[in-house]
Amino acid sequence: MAVKITGTGSYIPGNIETNADFQLHEFMNDDGSPFKQNNETIIKKFKAITGISERRYASNQFNTSDLGFFAAKEAISNANIDPETIDYIIVGHNYGDINYNTEQSDTVPSIASRIKHLLGIKNPKCVAYDILFGCPGWNEGVIQANAFITSNIAKKCLVIGAETLSRVVDKHDRDSMIYSDGAGAVIVEKTTDTSGGILAHESATYTTNETHFIYFGKTNNTESTDRRKYIKMYGRKVYEFALNHVPLAMKTCLDKSGYNITDLKKILIHQANEKMDEAIVQRFYKLYNLEMPQQIMPMSIGTLGNSSVATIPTLLDLIMRGNIENHHIEKGDIIMFASVGAGMNINAIVYKH
Amino acid sequence: MAVKITGTGSYIPGNIETNADFQLHEFMNDDGSPFKQNNETIIKKFKAITGISERRYASNQFNTSDLGFFAAKEAISNANIDPETIDYIIVGHNYGDINYNTEQSDTVPSIASRIKHLLGIKNPKCVAYDILFGCPGWNEGVIQANAFITSNIAKKCLVIGAETLSRVVDKHDRDSMIYSDGAGAVIVEKTTDTSGGILAHESATYTTNETHFIYFGKTNNTESTDRRKYIKMYGRKVYEFALNHVPLAMKTCLDKSGYNITDLKKILIHQANEKMDEAIVQRFYKLYNLEMPQQIMPMSIGTLGNSSVATIPTLLDLIMRGNIENHHIEKGDIIMFASVGAGMNINAIVYKH
Repeated sequence: MAVKITGTGSYIPGNIETNADFQLHEFMNDDGSPFKQNNETIIKKFKAITGISERRYASNQFNTSDLGFFAAKEAISNANIDPETIDYIIVGHNYGDINYNTEQSDTVPSIASRIKHLLGIKNPKCVAYDILFGCPGWNEGVIQANAFITSNIAKKCLVIGAETLSRVVDKHDRDSMIYSDGAGAVIVEKTTDTSGGILAHESATYTTNETHFIYFGKTNNTESTDRRKYIKMYGRKVYEFALNHVPLAMKTCLDKSGYNITDLKKILIHQANEKMDEAIVQRFYKLYNLEMPQQIMPMSIGTLGNSSVATIPTLLDLIMRGNIENHHIEKGDIIMFASVGAGMNINAIVYKH
Repeated sequence: MAVKITGTGSYIPGNIETNADFQLHEFMNDDGSPFKQNNETIIKKFKAITGISERRYASNQFNTSDLGFFAAKEAISNANIDPETIDYIIVGHNYGDINYNTEQSDTVPSIASRIKHLLGIKNPKCVAYDILFGCPGWNEGVIQANAFITSNIAKKCLVIGAETLSRVVDKHDRDSMIYSDGAGAVIVEKTTDTSGGILAHESATYTTNETHFIYFGKTNNTESTDRRKYIKMYGRKVYEFALNHVPLAMKTCLDKSGYNITDLKKILIHQANEKMDEAIVQRFYKLYNLEMPQQIMPMSIGTLGNSSVATIPTLLDLIMRGNIENHHIEKGDIIMFASVGAGMNINAIVYKH
């Protein structure tokens, strides 16, 4: 028995928000003070660090559940399965559905129930639930699907990551340029293959001092009457946390799998920030006294930004469909998924395709 | 190996909101029209159907995560375990933390991360996540804990149900009298016992026409400028749905367990509505051509109302501590947990104490 990903899908919203679109934003520090640099310099620096040139925003009429549905439909069709045979629909997200131009998250019914409804799946034994685990929520959904399949309560699971961060960004916060909307999905299945599939996984939650490194907080514009909360982070702390902990979690996971670091063909890391992702992977290789290989880390952040739970399944789908230049995953390849985000949560999966 | 509940805890908020406290509310139909009856009659009828005399509201300074923390602390102490040995913290809820007098749900970081932080658990391998599955979210968390233990990725899980529905009630909606705040928690553990514990479980998600039977919607006061969303339901539809589907799910679950209906000592059903709960359990027994036995269904709804995910673990804790008159659970007793709620989701667990 091997637990394998038998289909992938993604939805990339059509609205392109370029860096130039932020040119007239009034950015402030979190104490409300203005930056010394002008926006042109801020945006140039932002691009150099994060690698982001543009990001995608969902159309006003669509919600997180719609994006998840579009990606799920593709994954089901790619896996070529009867949707009525799906045992679980697991949706990772952070903010639920937020109608455009409103501020309340809507999570009743769950996003998974909404997606199941949109997919038209009638089988009531297809159990649909949401998981909140920060950006690593999709990875964690795959780990849960694996547990259900291993403990014989499921054979086929649909695991989705969907998010519309554009609905929770503070336009006075420089970090607002990071966030994006999107959705990715996979079918995780019990197969008769005798080897391969999900080989190892590792998860961790750090809450001693780290719990609120990424949080929901007030606008940086202290003079505003706006009492609404937005996605916020202590960027420097998140960066240091990620560098200190993610490479070690990746190593633990790889070592558990029994494979060698040189067996690893690709690392699909949560598209959080290009420089940070590179530093994490470099440090991971350093733990084995190796240099980070060329072409190990496919990236989509440049044009897609950080869509939280959606980045890894979207990147996987793009690679599988031949849409990431010079990156391919072939049968038998050992790959790793690794993520870090709000919680603060970290996880990694070693997977043999 | 048996997967057992080795500790229970609950938190019952101190603020008592009696039915009389609703006397001056201006109740309306969902089209904004007034009721023909006066509030005294409305409240009398409400009491007769739901069995609710009073409910509990959290103190203004507490949030869902605080309530969950209080219950979790008790469960850990009751199980007499070192909290650092917990592998998973699973929190069922629906709306996250909503600060008193605000309207935005706050789910970043997850409620599970917040509770882990409050518990002071340092072990990063204790993985904390939230599950959204409507009122049956706590049951489903227990089912997930069982899967993690069965598939050898966990030995001890803390499963919490916590909710502050008082923060999402529409005061113009008669149904607002149903909802309550609270939290319950259990420790689910791998034990060396050779039998007993979780014997069977059953889950279902109905989304064909049912998805939005319980939803987040506008105030009944159509003349108001209030654009905020509140917890809402089509009560009649929920009632019919529950009666049609819950007894069958309970039967499937019991039959899977291999035990006989006459072996069943207690049914802990989600405290949604007394008349509905009675009708469900009566119909369940009717499936076996039996009358519902006296004393089979302990209730706490009369004084605690419907606190969603919190009702079953709270009721269990009250029974275990001898706080529900004439109801006891002894070693070897076969009991059932059954729930229904937003999604629309249903689940049941057969458990041997």
